Amino acid sequence: MSTFDIAVLTTGDELLNGELADTNTGTIAAILTRHGYRLRCSLSAPDQEKEIEAALRYLTQHVQAVIVTGGLGPTGDDLTARAAARALGQSLAINDEALEMVRAWFRNRNRQMEPTNERQALLPIKAIPLPNSLGTAPGFRLQQGDCQLFFLPGVPSEMKAMFEQSVLPALQALNPGRSALQQRTFKLFGLPESRIDAMIPYRELPAGVKVAFALDYPLVVVKLRVAGDDAGRQLDRAEALLQKVLGEYIMTRNEETPEGNVGRLLTAAGLTLSLAESCTGGLLASMLTSQPGASAFLERAAVTYANSAKLDWLRVPLSLLQQYGAVSEQCARAMAIGLRQASDTDLALAITGIAGPDGGTPERPVGTVFLALASPDGVHVKGYRFNGGRQKVQRMSAYMALEWLRRFALRQQQEPLKG
Amino acid sequence: MSTFDIAVLTTGDELLNGELADTNTGTIAAILTRHGYRLRCSLSAPDQEKEIEAALRYLTQHVQAVIVTGGLGPTGDDLTARAAARALGQSLAINDEALEMVRAWFRNRNRQMEPTNERQALLPIKAIPLPNSLGTAPGFRLQQGDCQLFFLPGVPSEMKAMFEQSVLPALQALNPGRSALQQRTFKLFGLPESRIDAMIPYRELPAGVKVAFALDYPLVVVKLRVAGDDAGRQLDRAEALLQKVLGEYIMTRNEETPEGNVGRLLTAAGLTLSLAESCTGGLLASMLTSQPGASAFLERAAVTYANSAKLDWLRVPLSLLQQYGAVSEQCARAMAIGLRQASDTDLALAITGIAGPDGGTPERPVGTVFLALASPDGVHVKGYRFNGGRQKVQRMSAYMALEWLRRFALRQQQEPLKG
Repeated sequence: MSTFDIAVLTTGDELLNGELADTNTGTIAAILTRHGYRLRCSLSAPDQEKEIEAALRYLTQHVQAVIVTGGLGPTGDDLTARAAARALGQSLAINDEALEMVRAWFRNRNRQMEPTNERQALLPIKAIPLPNSLGTAPGFRLQQGDCQLFFLPGVPSEMKAMFEQSVLPALQALNPGRSALQQRTFKLFGLPESRIDAMIPYRELPAGVKVAFALDYPLVVVKLRVAGDDAGRQLDRAEALLQKVLGEYIMTRNEETPEGNVGRLLTAAGLTLSLAESCTGGLLASMLTSQPGASAFLERAAVTYANSAKLDWLRVPLSLLQQYGAVSEQCARAMAIGLRQASDTDLALAITGIAGPDGGTPERPVGTVFLALASPDGVHVKGYRFNGGRQKVQRMSAYMALEWLRRFALRQQQEPLKG
Repeated sequence: MSTFDIAVLTTGDELLNGELADTNTGTIAAILTRHGYRLRCSLSAPDQEKEIEAALRYLTQHVQAVIVTGGLGPTGDDLTARAAARALGQSLAINDEALEMVRAWFRNRNRQMEPTNERQALLPIKAIPLPNSLGTAPGFRLQQGDCQLFFLPGVPSEMKAMFEQSVLPALQALNPGRSALQQRTFKLFGLPESRIDAMIPYRELPAGVKVAFALDYPLVVVKLRVAGDDAGRQLDRAEALLQKVLGEYIMTRNEETPEGNVGRLLTAAGLTLSLAESCTGGLLASMLTSQPGASAFLERAAVTYANSAKLDWLRVPLSLLQQYGAVSEQCARAMAIGLRQASDTDLALAITGIAGPDGGTPERPVGTVFLALASPDGVHVKGYRFNGGRQKVQRMSAYMALEWLRRFALRQQQEPLKG
């Protein structure tokens, strides 16, 4: 198989003045790797026609495919099409197909098209437009000698969708790629990376399997990777080993999110849920309801910031609040019990704590969080002390609550509810 | 002043297979920009001697300074010093000063130095070592013609410390940098980028001021930038123009988030707030409570997914739900009124809608959302039809609600509450 080198060129002043970190290169790199292609290099250029032109001239001489992101918008700093026309010695003209794509985008949304949007159809004369289902800017494709060039918008969601819809199939038609790297991803909760690393039985793993780590706070992401015809079987063996030593810490695998996983488990178990959030302020409810189908299990949630809301909606006795305070094991328990009565759900989960930066005391410092889960089996309560700033404490609390729900739902698969 | 172009070369397979997103370029870019330098381009190369050598050869011919990160570790895939030696036609030798740096690092920590660590002192013969206070790998510096090359480790914390300690002062000695770019940022809501672009009075802007756009859905970010001694005054004039034509759409400026801005405005106005979220599932509450100080204005929030919660907590009449349905102007109004009574707050905001993907009907398709705001002035209700998938509809709904709250709080500054 002949060499098939691919380069990425990202454009935008914001990438070179530190305002925005480039994520498009990583996205493209991951998809290419998964499909057996190699990204040979990536380059960033500012919003200057000359610079983009120079980068394109250089890359077209050195690789077989160039993926360019950014600079296709309607405004004056969107210069990619002009730079491409110069680099390839083509003139610019309104591309009828691209213009119709732009018009259709506005038409379908009953929105007025601005004259500046017509600029988005001004492309090098030999460009083939690429549809953009998520935004106004069509992409386009060009050829220069043996090099294929693909131009995509810089908005990450649009870029990714168009790369998968248009660019990847085109690359596959040009070159089948080497044997693809296969990968399985596991999201673990409750152990630090160094501990997980020490627990992985590296010597027992099948020879070609590589292990990589990433952090998605508070989750540790473990990736198992291998190439070759036997990849599937090797990954099965590696996954079985991982499950054996770390199974209980694995929240989800591959594409599933922890909140999606919990929703699926609760729905499958036929469990209904209500939430009372104090320090997390609706974060857990928001995570669970970001997933389609949340209404199958979630009945309601309360963000009870003020004590009056705890009294009123959760029926927490005033005397209890006065005696123990809102951030206490007793209050968490009362919130969960009161919520379960109010909502008539199988499960009622309560979170109360101090996310900070203010509100900590020597006995109950910032990061003190109590969780309570009321179920037909009774009420389970536990206190934690989480590290980090406000948003880290909120995030950790929400993930801990997800973990409680996950484990409860899994237990139900073995021994269904008594109640 | 002559041109002084700087390039970054990051090395590492992990950057080109999607395992790790490069943050070093952004870090360097931000520091350079702050000090009035321009990063002309950035390049990523894999852990292959030939590729790094080719990149170095290219860059040394095109810019005046190259900052290279990665590949200085003790393992076999750390090839940067060898590649640099080849690119610059120098031999490799153990550098005594560098070796002493490596030895001292281990000595100071009472740790045993591995023989492989000696490799970290094997540098091109003319290299000047750069100290690394946070790790074992010394950096180094080389000159090729008019180009200065700086080699730093890839670990972000080590890279940043060494860049600030050694590289920035060296750059400043070579070239004082232009006067630093100053910038102001504005987040706009309610108009598309193309419309905003058409409304900006480019001809009236002070000569040096550049306008750049970015998207942070559903916000459009507008940046005004200018360099030079007169930057502050020019930005003042440009900002005044922007305020004149687009002022009402500007949600926040510079570092402030829209949710932080709304919290600040409500607190300053002494307004208390409660929320009832249906389709947004707690997203708005979660955004507002991610900011410190939310308890000063937020009394409570309800995520009323099931109708029973609307009946119970929000006192929405069952007959109303049966007659008009939960996604209706009538229901939104009743939610806001009932919530305001239950919570006794100045403002009660309700959101009900269909985020999808399921639940749409021909009359009320996915994206139909009603907002209601109950205040001492009465109840304001409005229906919307938002585009996009579930999370986009949720996000758009939450930002629209923020915008309602922002405008209400601003009006209070002019004419305080009647009630």
